[in-house]
Amino acid sequence: MESDIGFQAALEEARKGASEGGVPIGACLVSADGKILGRGHNLRMQKGSPTIHAEIGALENAGRLPASAYQGATMYTTLSPCDMCTGACILYKVKRVVLGENKTFVGGEDYLKQRGIEVVNVNSAECEDLMKKFIKEHPEEWNEDIGEQ
Amino acid sequence: MESDIGFQAALEEARKGASEGGVPIGACLVSADGKILGRGHNLRMQKGSPTIHAEIGALENAGRLPASAYQGATMYTTLSPCDMCTGACILYKVKRVVLGENKTFVGGEDYLKQRGIEVVNVNSAECEDLMKKFIKEHPEEWNEDIGEQ
Repeated sequence: MESDIGFQAALEEARKGASEGGVPIGACLVSADGKILGRGHNLRMQKGSPTIHAEIGALENAGRLPASAYQGATMYTTLSPCDMCTGACILYKVKRVVLGENKTFVGGEDYLKQRGIEVVNVNSAECEDLMKKFIKEHPEEWNEDIGEQ
Repeated sequence: MESDIGFQAALEEARKGASEGGVPIGACLVSADGKILGRGHNLRMQKGSPTIHAEIGALENAGRLPASAYQGATMYTTLSPCDMCTGACILYKVKRVVLGENKTFVGGEDYLKQRGIEVVNVNSAECEDLMKKFIKEHPEEWNEDIGEQ
């Protein structure tokens, strides 16, 4: 899973977010036949956006698609998805969510499974390191991103 | 509830969406002390956006806020919220979701309640009429918006 092009693209997006001083989370939506439909990264810091999390950005950049385009698709994301991004994956009925790590944050993994979506954790050390560095340096911004105080 | 400024603003947004030829759903986020924080409407047709549903637009237009700003807040929306928008309300821990109707679509109301969010349905005939007209004229676009085929 870690070598999948979708995961590598999500990781590149996370690194890009980090290089921009943003929340270092990336995502990439890949179709059933292995094509990248869209990719993106969290833009809270860069665009003052409370809704463009990585997965939302990947879906947005994929553009308007019929429901059939999401069939069998995988959402790769470098971090366990928050409730909003969990809901977005459920809305469009992706088949699988592959996440980089869930040591720094645990999102809606159980609910994804309840709704019939496969969840795979690749336990990426790089994803975890990116998040740990950001949380240490920007604790307030991180809490803002996950609706905590 | 139907006379609340938040609901009236959400309805105005839905009418605006309809006048633009878009999916006629509007939303408005109102703080605990009654101030409008942000409002928006579905922009699938207007901007080719699969993620700017009404509630996401309202949250986005409210901009970056600390978690405390959402405490006691109400999300007014003209239609029962889809799974993505349900998740967004849960992420930011709004206190209450007031929805216009759920006859044309039933979203994540049960899950909102499970997660401790109050749900109120105002059964607005105008909200229902706006949706019925759109669904009749644009069945494919409506299915696309809710991930159905």
